Amino acid sequence: MDSFIDRLEQGIARCGTPVVVGIDPHLQMLPENILPASSAQSVPGCAEWDIRRLALALQSFCRGVLDVVSGLVAAVKFQLAFFEQIGPAGVSVLTDLVQTAHRGGLLVILDGKRGDIGSTALAYAQGMLGSGDASPWGGDALTVNPYLGDDALEPFVQTARERHAGIFVLVKTSNPGGRLFQDLVAEGRPIYRHVAALVEDLASRHLGKCGYGDIGGVVGATYREQLAELREVMPHTWFLVPGYGSQGARAADVAPAFDARGRGAIINNSRALIFAYRRREYDRFGAARWQEAVEAATRDMIAEIRAETPAGRIAPE
Amino acid sequence: MDSFIDRLEQGIARCGTPVVVGIDPHLQMLPENILPASSAQSVPGCAEWDIRRLALALQSFCRGVLDVVSGLVAAVKFQLAFFEQIGPAGVSVLTDLVQTAHRGGLLVILDGKRGDIGSTALAYAQGMLGSGDASPWGGDALTVNPYLGDDALEPFVQTARERHAGIFVLVKTSNPGGRLFQDLVAEGRPIYRHVAALVEDLASRHLGKCGYGDIGGVVGATYREQLAELREVMPHTWFLVPGYGSQGARAADVAPAFDARGRGAIINNSRALIFAYRRREYDRFGAARWQEAVEAATRDMIAEIRAETPAGRIAPE
Repeated sequence: MDSFIDRLEQGIARCGTPVVVGIDPHLQMLPENILPASSAQSVPGCAEWDIRRLALALQSFCRGVLDVVSGLVAAVKFQLAFFEQIGPAGVSVLTDLVQTAHRGGLLVILDGKRGDIGSTALAYAQGMLGSGDASPWGGDALTVNPYLGDDALEPFVQTARERHAGIFVLVKTSNPGGRLFQDLVAEGRPIYRHVAALVEDLASRHLGKCGYGDIGGVVGATYREQLAELREVMPHTWFLVPGYGSQGARAADVAPAFDARGRGAIINNSRALIFAYRRREYDRFGAARWQEAVEAATRDMIAEIRAETPAGRIAPE
Repeated sequence: MDSFIDRLEQGIARCGTPVVVGIDPHLQMLPENILPASSAQSVPGCAEWDIRRLALALQSFCRGVLDVVSGLVAAVKFQLAFFEQIGPAGVSVLTDLVQTAHRGGLLVILDGKRGDIGSTALAYAQGMLGSGDASPWGGDALTVNPYLGDDALEPFVQTARERHAGIFVLVKTSNPGGRLFQDLVAEGRPIYRHVAALVEDLASRHLGKCGYGDIGGVVGATYREQLAELREVMPHTWFLVPGYGSQGARAADVAPAFDARGRGAIINNSRALIFAYRRREYDRFGAARWQEAVEAATRDMIAEIRAETPAGRIAPE
């Protein structure tokens, strides 16, 4: 089997776009025909049958998203929090959706931002990394938090390699508060640059045919200058770039994430795609035709990225 | 309902010890009569019936631990990775165990080291914080990672307050690699001190009757000097102290975590307690009598902490 990053690169070439659809199913934002707003409020303290109803709503909505986007993009990113929020039933829905995504030809990134030490990190990695029968969660990749240092990342790195999976380590996050610790300057450079040095080192130890390593980095789209700076100092690290859409970043902001050939980054957009029916640009569809809104918004984002970034140089097969 | 930290302090006074039993059920370390070693190897790629067997083994072992330690200690800490490792079935076992622990009078700390931004952090917090019917996971407290900054912590802080729950934010972790980023010096002090300042500020905004806030910090026992330094600068922050036992720290190492009255810290020990039957000191019990080994090791640790730290001043009711 090819390395995760080669499979990702091939999927991007096939679809002609580095857009990733983020599946963050906020219960309160689901279309009325999937889950009435009154039911969405019932998470805390809800009875068993309410949980079942919420689980079915999550499943139905996310399957609907996967139906629309498989074929359009190479990968989806599931935000684990929105499934874990309703307990075991939500995790069960998620593992089912991962299989559905794989059947649709999509790569699956599990956005769990896990991080722990030694054998605990190994348990997360072994549970979540590896598609098909390789792990219970079935992720092709997992996002990982670097605060606990290099020895805490090692089990994720090793397991990813053994299973042809990948990880994306948080380097510079897209939220305003990310600056508080990540931008503190130590030994002449900000903390995110120290993290970047470790991630680039890990990535460059095991390069795929595409010239990038299977250890990637998360770099937010909301800090354009740092994105360019990090692209420069992390030439072997594929970037997962959040922050597009609802968080304010546009195509011009993410352009610096790519190399000259238009590769080296995937651009995630979650709410502005999956809940496009709530945006004024797509309100012609209404809540009942929310899947058409997902498709229109995804196609529009693909066109924007193609027109305004080096990713326009990727030829669809 | 009293704040989490007041309930914790009352539980410690009732049991006369700040010891917390960490439930990290490594599948490969379970006693042979709970899970034969040959079955423990089967996590990746295992069939549905194997997962069910692993889930039943986890449940049986952890219930056995809870039976022994309820009454001896005030709280247990579940390591989420070892449950998530086997997928939805493991999460289902965990939520069942949380209820069992509560019925046994124990407070439950979920060690998930979660961290994310905005509405995602809120989903984790709402799913995991709040005992009884307040949340699907039912935790009295959750461990949280600070790398994403203050705005990412806020939903955890708010939800904890609304639900009389608590959080413990990673400040200084117990592993060797924790130094890599946490000890970098910016603006004249290490990163962990910057995190400490934020956590102390959050803690001091909402003090319980015991004088501590409901926002705690994780400070490893393996760095004795930093533990003393942080106790000094974080007078309103209750510490969750990992690293005792298997990671090498002893009672003398954790003594600086307490205030002069013997309060302000809980000391966690996981493997050296729950897998005590594997230690030479307790091999007289053998694998079949592993529960007696848990009890003996827990009582011995309670005595050590009582004899060699200020926690000896806590009078059991």
